[in-house]
Amino acid sequence: MREIGSVGFMDKPVPEPGPTDAVVRTTKALICTSDSHTVQGGIGPRTNLTLGHEGVGVVHAVGGEVKDFRPGDRVLVGAITPDWGDLAAQNGYPSQSGGALGGFKFANLKDGVFAEYFHVSGADANLARIPDDIPDDVAVYCADMLSTGFMGAEHGAIPIGGTVAVLAQGPVGLMATAGARLRGAGLVIGVESVPSRQELARFYGADVIVDFGKEDVVERIHELTDGQGVDTAIEALGADVTFQTAVKVTKPGGTISVIGYFGQGEFVHIPRVEWGVGMADKTIATGLCPGGRLRMERLLRVLRNKRVDPTRLTTHRFPFSEMERAFEVSDKKLEDTVKVLVSFDE
Amino acid sequence: MREIGSVGFMDKPVPEPGPTDAVVRTTKALICTSDSHTVQGGIGPRTNLTLGHEGVGVVHAVGGEVKDFRPGDRVLVGAITPDWGDLAAQNGYPSQSGGALGGFKFANLKDGVFAEYFHVSGADANLARIPDDIPDDVAVYCADMLSTGFMGAEHGAIPIGGTVAVLAQGPVGLMATAGARLRGAGLVIGVESVPSRQELARFYGADVIVDFGKEDVVERIHELTDGQGVDTAIEALGADVTFQTAVKVTKPGGTISVIGYFGQGEFVHIPRVEWGVGMADKTIATGLCPGGRLRMERLLRVLRNKRVDPTRLTTHRFPFSEMERAFEVSDKKLEDTVKVLVSFDE
Amino acid sequence: MREIGSVGFMDKPVPEPGPTDAVVRTTKALICTSDSHTVQGGIGPRTNLTLGHEGVGVVHAVGGEVKDFRPGDRVLVGAITPDWGDLAAQNGYPSQSGGALGGFKFANLKDGVFAEYFHVSGADANLARIPDDIPDDVAVYCADMLSTGFMGAEHGAIPIGGTVAVLAQGPVGLMATAGARLRGAGLVIGVESVPSRQELARFYGADVIVDFGKEDVVERIHELTDGQGVDTAIEALGADVTFQTAVKVTKPGGTISVIGYFGQGEFVHIPRVEWGVGMADKTIATGLCPGGRLRMERLLRVLRNKRVDPTRLTTHRFPFSEMERAFEVSDKKLEDTVKVLVSFDE
Amino acid sequence: MREIGSVGFMDKPVPEPGPTDAVVRTTKALICTSDSHTVQGGIGPRTNLTLGHEGVGVVHAVGGEVKDFRPGDRVLVGAITPDWGDLAAQNGYPSQSGGALGGFKFANLKDGVFAEYFHVSGADANLARIPDDIPDDVAVYCADMLSTGFMGAEHGAIPIGGTVAVLAQGPVGLMATAGARLRGAGLVIGVESVPSRQELARFYGADVIVDFGKEDVVERIHELTDGQGVDTAIEALGADVTFQTAVKVTKPGGTISVIGYFGQGEFVHIPRVEWGVGMADKTIATGLCPGGRLRMERLLRVLRNKRVDPTRLTTHRFPFSEMERAFEVSDKKLEDTVKVLVSFDE
Repeated sequence: MREIGSVGFMDKPVPEPGPTDAVVRTTKALICTSDSHTVQGGIGPRTNLTLGHEGVGVVHAVGGEVKDFRPGDRVLVGAITPDWGDLAAQNGYPSQSGGALGGFKFANLKDGVFAEYFHVSGADANLARIPDDIPDDVAVYCADMLSTGFMGAEHGAIPIGGTVAVLAQGPVGLMATAGARLRGAGLVIGVESVPSRQELARFYGADVIVDFGKEDVVERIHELTDGQGVDTAIEALGADVTFQTAVKVTKPGGTISVIGYFGQGEFVHIPRVEWGVGMADKTIATGLCPGGRLRMERLLRVLRNKRVDPTRLTTHRFPFSEMERAFEVSDKKLEDTVKVLVSFDE
Repeated sequence: MREIGSVGFMDKPVPEPGPTDAVVRTTKALICTSDSHTVQGGIGPRTNLTLGHEGVGVVHAVGGEVKDFRPGDRVLVGAITPDWGDLAAQNGYPSQSGGALGGFKFANLKDGVFAEYFHVSGADANLARIPDDIPDDVAVYCADMLSTGFMGAEHGAIPIGGTVAVLAQGPVGLMATAGARLRGAGLVIGVESVPSRQELARFYGADVIVDFGKEDVVERIHELTDGQGVDTAIEALGADVTFQTAVKVTKPGGTISVIGYFGQGEFVHIPRVEWGVGMADKTIATGLCPGGRLRMERLLRVLRNKRVDPTRLTTHRFPFSEMERAFEVSDKKLEDTVKVLVSFDE
Repeated sequence: MREIGSVGFMDKPVPEPGPTDAVVRTTKALICTSDSHTVQGGIGPRTNLTLGHEGVGVVHAVGGEVKDFRPGDRVLVGAITPDWGDLAAQNGYPSQSGGALGGFKFANLKDGVFAEYFHVSGADANLARIPDDIPDDVAVYCADMLSTGFMGAEHGAIPIGGTVAVLAQGPVGLMATAGARLRGAGLVIGVESVPSRQELARFYGADVIVDFGKEDVVERIHELTDGQGVDTAIEALGADVTFQTAVKVTKPGGTISVIGYFGQGEFVHIPRVEWGVGMADKTIATGLCPGGRLRMERLLRVLRNKRVDPTRLTTHRFPFSEMERAFEVSDKKLEDTVKVLVSFDE
Repeated sequence: MREIGSVGFMDKPVPEPGPTDAVVRTTKALICTSDSHTVQGGIGPRTNLTLGHEGVGVVHAVGGEVKDFRPGDRVLVGAITPDWGDLAAQNGYPSQSGGALGGFKFANLKDGVFAEYFHVSGADANLARIPDDIPDDVAVYCADMLSTGFMGAEHGAIPIGGTVAVLAQGPVGLMATAGARLRGAGLVIGVESVPSRQELARFYGADVIVDFGKEDVVERIHELTDGQGVDTAIEALGADVTFQTAVKVTKPGGTISVIGYFGQGEFVHIPRVEWGVGMADKTIATGLCPGGRLRMERLLRVLRNKRVDPTRLTTHRFPFSEMERAFEVSDKKLEDTVKVLVSFDE
């Protein structure tokens, strides 16, 4: 990204690690819709910023105080790389270290992963070794997609056998669907209108699909839950209308778990009456993709023991040399694009 | 209440208890601003409905299956009388039993406590014996004021030594202030502009008062918290502007705990940017006054061991014969009115 | 059960429902090892007590205040039938209503389900309708096996991708294994030495089997978890030695979740050093099978949407007329006996 | 400490800070009974180890990467100084970073604070600035006494108005008593037989004292709680008998919160029947003193706003030159010794 609205290749020097840091040689990366948001100016002006926050690779160099990693190690890096000693991290919210959303450094506060080499702070705390039996193009999904999607389910306080609606089945919504299944939901309702995404939603665990283009979502979900509403609604789009629907379909005592990025408008609107005039024990939870070595190790364990297969999300593949074309495909969301994978080592 | 906008005395027969119910002879009751809301039509049309949900008295009669209470027992009754076997109660949300806000029966689904006698369902589960050393005009504050106010603190997940802002110091806000102290808050900021309520806020535990008439609340609270915002903001008014302020003054990873009744507008507005675009781990919790015997017993213990003295809230007293005047004083919020107590036994 | 050590058929009248109760005509029931404990005197002397607490059937009669069930309804009844208005239930522990373990009424405080008809208190709160597509011999597993086993996982606070050891793979341990998978465990270690149970453990989701007859369990589990120990150890046997192992294999900050019934000895022994001398943040949680309509409805949803197939637990089937033989098979734990199903309607 | 059983002064060089560390010039310190345990060999052999883990002082030097502290700053240091990037810290248990109890470094893994200068790792994360209006001899109580004592209350999940028993009123037990009040307990029962400690227990918030020398503790506590037992029992001694009592006096669904250090015996004994044979929903929680800047800042706020006055714990004061005498007084627990304060700057 050169400036708002403009992207292209640039030459930059290979970064140097500080004493506790690492530099990683990229092998695979994924393009995220938030990269597009950034280019459009969603997080404010940035110039000559390398994009990308979902990447894996091989350790190229480490600082003198790094204990657990060596050049040559295959590693996964979370999209969020917290400062673990920060007050927010001590408070249990590492993604907010250094201020709101402060753990989100790649392609925001510093250069991202769409480069031959990228820099990682706090290597011992933020890298995770990739087991031999997990290929790079599988492991890379842990960085953001699994971590954010699963967070949606975790924040939703889903009881075993509970009912869950996942509103929108983009890549993060699909992983929220998988996450709802991983937490033991008894009924997972996927809300989506695009046929190919409906099919993926079924693959990742939706028991029922509600097509908002064809049915009244609120009515249909109440019907599917004996008129009660769901225990948990996961908002995975970041749109006001979806958020309002989420509040409406959640039962009293239930949770609205927000994982979408809300990019527009001065306000997000809570429908007052369906929110129970502020008294229906409906909790609205939010969060930013959890990062860190422990999280990444746990997600790799999920992959290793075949709980979830994220590869069906990969609809397109490009070599790094075709990055501009790759970005365009992702940005314009050509029909059926879910995730675009970029290879740096092929 | 005869109909929307009209109140007055009516003759009604003494109610009869069902097998698990009780009828209580009222001794003291408090008028709540939500009684005014009800008269104004806030919960929809009601005719010939006895108002009032904060009352104590003496058991007059019990049904055949009631085990633990007998006529003559001095008892406290929560404003909310849940159906404990209901699915919402089994789910941990008894106030939502029978549907959203369904535990709120008095002066809503059935006659309230502003009468010589009132009916209580589920006597063994919803009555609590008042210890001899707690007068009726003290105990009556447990029914709603302590229970709702303290809930604000409880839902706020206040850490020991944490920072709390309580927005608006009406009677429920004052009890939220007391509740924040009871949970161990290290700094309690009371937001209020009325001098007499500011004084009460200090009495109930506010360390600092912020006067929204004189200062920028958001700026001042950030100043008081080293720029971080509070761990917990308790919204105790039920107004859109206060709610927005609550979101703004809460730190990433903090909680906005809503205890106000939101009576107006199609939407309640979340300020998008200060909410962290849906990613700052700011949780919005709501709830309805917890009821039931266990809750009431615990609140009576709080009174008995002198943790909180609610009597400073009583600014006016009337006999039941002057109920209309009492209601007018409460309704019009004459300067310095906090709570109006009505005696049925004097 | 006639008295301690003696079982046999008896004639008893068909029970009558109280106003809020139901009487159910039994169709299927399961024999539990705790039935054997009871006969051996584990819960104290009992005479002429009908055994059995895992049963399903058809509503035969309901009391006058029952709203949601009618004669002819196919219903599931939890092994635990709490008094929902009780103080312990209001406190969030319905299984402890009426005193420690007080929700355990069948074959303890009143006649159990090994009879043509049995009595259920609080029908609206404690019965659940069985969907048409779930046969009785599947639904019956919800009453205790799924509810207790899954509780082991729920109390264990398993993170997505976390590591879990389930100690002993009897029927409840197997359902704890399934429950660990339902909560998203990334690695489930089943500890068991009987080959047929090892096979079942794999079927229900164990990734690795540790055979305590052949290997050092503590050493092996540390090996499998990079020397850290597991996030959660589920004790599913109720034996001192297994409990000690559970404490030893749990990492600092982890949880030991006890679902076994401890029937012997004055004390259960915590190994002091491995417990971190009382400072390693290892939590020991216990509980009694959750009951109630909401729980049962959620478990039926788990079955309906094919999350778990409990029928592989059924190793033996008998008609009610061969009850004595059935009890003997279960009691003596013939090789490969897991659960014995008794039919009342064939 | 020279070796097990032997203490005395030694000359050591002033430590040097690493890049993220600080060196603090000690002003005040407190002697802890665990210092005596250490000398007796409780944590294994140590030679030429400087004792002490409760200290405050002035920053003497900082490493090059320290951002928030400068020489001359008055600072508090928690007894526990976690490695915040460690996996256990990422898991929410910083005191267990680097292995079980690994955050406990002073006088265990490295030299402690009973010296003119001591070294602190991770200065930005583990130091807290002391406000001007809090003297050093007050602030020093945060390092361990308040942090550990309050943790006992926090882990106990005390509901507002709940009942709490604190078993043993030594310095940590007294702070647990204060902590129970800070969490809103409605009834705090202090168990203690020494008259001077009974008096302190009342000062710090015990409503009732039970003298185990004169009464049956289990019986008396059941009497005080209408036969139910307490919501929370805090074990603050580290003795098997106290632990057993704690289990016995806790109600089903309650929590036993352990803050004592268990120094003896192969096992700690859970009384099987009163534990509800592993089914009474009684949770046993443990932990190690929370450390870190956020915790210390919160505790300082508690002091600053006069929630608790720890100075009544200081029964003896000595200059550093009389350290050996000070240690002896603390070690031998002369009648009425609670805490011994050592001054390095007088």
